[in-house]
Amino acid sequence: MDALELKEAMGRLAGARPLVHHITNLVVAHGTADLTLAMGGSPIMAHAQEEAEEITSRANALLLNLGTPSNDQLKAMELSGLKAQELGTPVILDPVGAGASAFRTKAALRLIQTVKPSVIRSNLGEAFALLQEEVQVKGVESLLDDQDLALRASKSLAVRFGCISAITGEVDVVSDGLTQDRIAGGSLWLKHITGSGCMATTSIACFLAVEPPFRASVLGLTVMKRASELAGNAKGPGSFKAALLDAIHHLRKMP
Amino acid sequence: MDALELKEAMGRLAGARPLVHHITNLVVAHGTADLTLAMGGSPIMAHAQEEAEEITSRANALLLNLGTPSNDQLKAMELSGLKAQELGTPVILDPVGAGASAFRTKAALRLIQTVKPSVIRSNLGEAFALLQEEVQVKGVESLLDDQDLALRASKSLAVRFGCISAITGEVDVVSDGLTQDRIAGGSLWLKHITGSGCMATTSIACFLAVEPPFRASVLGLTVMKRASELAGNAKGPGSFKAALLDAIHHLRKMP
Amino acid sequence: MDALELKEAMGRLAGARPLVHHITNLVVAHGTADLTLAMGGSPIMAHAQEEAEEITSRANALLLNLGTPSNDQLKAMELSGLKAQELGTPVILDPVGAGASAFRTKAALRLIQTVKPSVIRSNLGEAFALLQEEVQVKGVESLLDDQDLALRASKSLAVRFGCISAITGEVDVVSDGLTQDRIAGGSLWLKHITGSGCMATTSIACFLAVEPPFRASVLGLTVMKRASELAGNAKGPGSFKAALLDAIHHLRKMP
Repeated sequence: MDALELKEAMGRLAGARPLVHHITNLVVAHGTADLTLAMGGSPIMAHAQEEAEEITSRANALLLNLGTPSNDQLKAMELSGLKAQELGTPVILDPVGAGASAFRTKAALRLIQTVKPSVIRSNLGEAFALLQEEVQVKGVESLLDDQDLALRASKSLAVRFGCISAITGEVDVVSDGLTQDRIAGGSLWLKHITGSGCMATTSIACFLAVEPPFRASVLGLTVMKRASELAGNAKGPGSFKAALLDAIHHLRKMP
Repeated sequence: MDALELKEAMGRLAGARPLVHHITNLVVAHGTADLTLAMGGSPIMAHAQEEAEEITSRANALLLNLGTPSNDQLKAMELSGLKAQELGTPVILDPVGAGASAFRTKAALRLIQTVKPSVIRSNLGEAFALLQEEVQVKGVESLLDDQDLALRASKSLAVRFGCISAITGEVDVVSDGLTQDRIAGGSLWLKHITGSGCMATTSIACFLAVEPPFRASVLGLTVMKRASELAGNAKGPGSFKAALLDAIHHLRKMP
Repeated sequence: MDALELKEAMGRLAGARPLVHHITNLVVAHGTADLTLAMGGSPIMAHAQEEAEEITSRANALLLNLGTPSNDQLKAMELSGLKAQELGTPVILDPVGAGASAFRTKAALRLIQTVKPSVIRSNLGEAFALLQEEVQVKGVESLLDDQDLALRASKSLAVRFGCISAITGEVDVVSDGLTQDRIAGGSLWLKHITGSGCMATTSIACFLAVEPPFRASVLGLTVMKRASELAGNAKGPGSFKAALLDAIHHLRKMP
């Protein structure tokens, strides 16, 4: 995707100023709210069961992130997800830490069954946990193999769950089960800050409000790759975080 | 208010090093704790019902913020609010998202009735939600109209609830029902970061510990306007956040 | 400790890439996750009772931080702590706000009894609260006296609870009950940002995964002192936070 196409899509997003309902983890809530604003969207973080459905009914997209799950929060996610389904509002699931505990893996699989998200954004390890396959992602596998695994896993996820699978890594992969796209580039600093995966999910969520799911996924991941490149000469992870937010804001205003 | 008067008031605040008890949302907890420190205050974030009253009894001001409400947290807010009332400790309410769900609007109105805050800091939409009036804030209304609406709403809020109403926007408005003050200026970047409204509430809360509520509100909002101007030539929202905190720290030390 | 020894220890830590399970407060969750990454570790924040033990069983160190306690979270801390004890995984406790409420003081003491942490990292006031001694830490006491008090308190804590006591302040003190070490230096800016104490705890936690507790404590505190000096010429608290994270990342890569 060239810079002009990206800029135009970002302009349309900001023009629509979509309200993105996040039910997310306490670690990245602030950073992803900031990102939503930098994209030109409007974030609302709300996890109480008493208001989940009402907030979702006003939103243009719903993001469910399992980073710090609890039973109360999972119940709110289900209520919001079902409301979104009823209204045709797109849902994106970020199964953070699937595979790190049975509780998370089950919660993610249950939400996929109940809520039927349009997009699942994960890393490779989480993808294999959802597929309930044992894979040795790191170690003997080379980076090239990682990409091959991601291509396989994203296709399997998309087919099995009838959604778009976006798997981020050295090279990001998006699949609808038939077609696949890859987004290369980006800065190594992304690995050194908390929540870069969660930010990718938010970036896609913003586009989901105004684009079809496959294209929204490619656009959302492309924004993260290009912005991180612009911010890539930062002195360290602290500076990079600020520069990344600056870069996202400016990406849609560049000549 | 001129720079010298502001600096002197900030100096008194820092000299008193007030303890400000926040029961707040998970999105801005970190940023508002940082702000409290930059103002020379001492933040304590505590939301467990088991300790709410005891923490409040040691605090010089209590801040209740409805950004990510839950029933447990609302109960703690009520306990803390009643303790503050008993001890004459000033309370400020930030009804984040009033109007976005019936749950939030009711929670805010209930807290106002029970706790009787000295100050309510809101934006224009939240103010009208508390007044239970339907207004089309954006769209055909011009910015001038927004300011007129804010003047009307702040007066109504102050009269109806017997408190100071501080409504932030392009121009901030403070009313006690009889007298009104406006604070103009500020940086457009404030709109592009998460929690600038919540930060305004914290800024007022710090002053509430050492000044009467009307003056505390004007001072608190003036700090945000002046600091954001000092930080206003930032490259983007990420840089602006850091620069804003730097500016607040330095505002009280400027020649 | 000289720069080379520190750099080598940091290199070993990053080489091991330890998984550090945090059950922590919502104010510093993001900042301490970022710090863990900057140290070369891998953070996981998880507080649900349903997964606490399983996450701990995969971790190389467990950090329990009482900054925003709730009964649910305390139960998860106990479950995780007992699992860590069973597996020989080192535990560090940060009794944030012990003394600020009876609830926190009791919770900290109960966790110490049940979980038997390897290290308790606190400030001086919290240390005396755990010792249930009344001390006037500030006021007439000079800084020198503060250091003397810290030396006494850390020895008492270490003896009473059979652990390492690390007390941070102008000069940090580490004691195992017999031997004591002091770490001087650092930047005054550390007092002006939220969570610098919590960051010290995380820094120690990362080293705990690869070093014995006394040495891990000295190393963890030395990293914070040296990094804050490198970041010390920042313009204000906002810039300092970013520069501190940059400095920690670079400390292990310096010539």
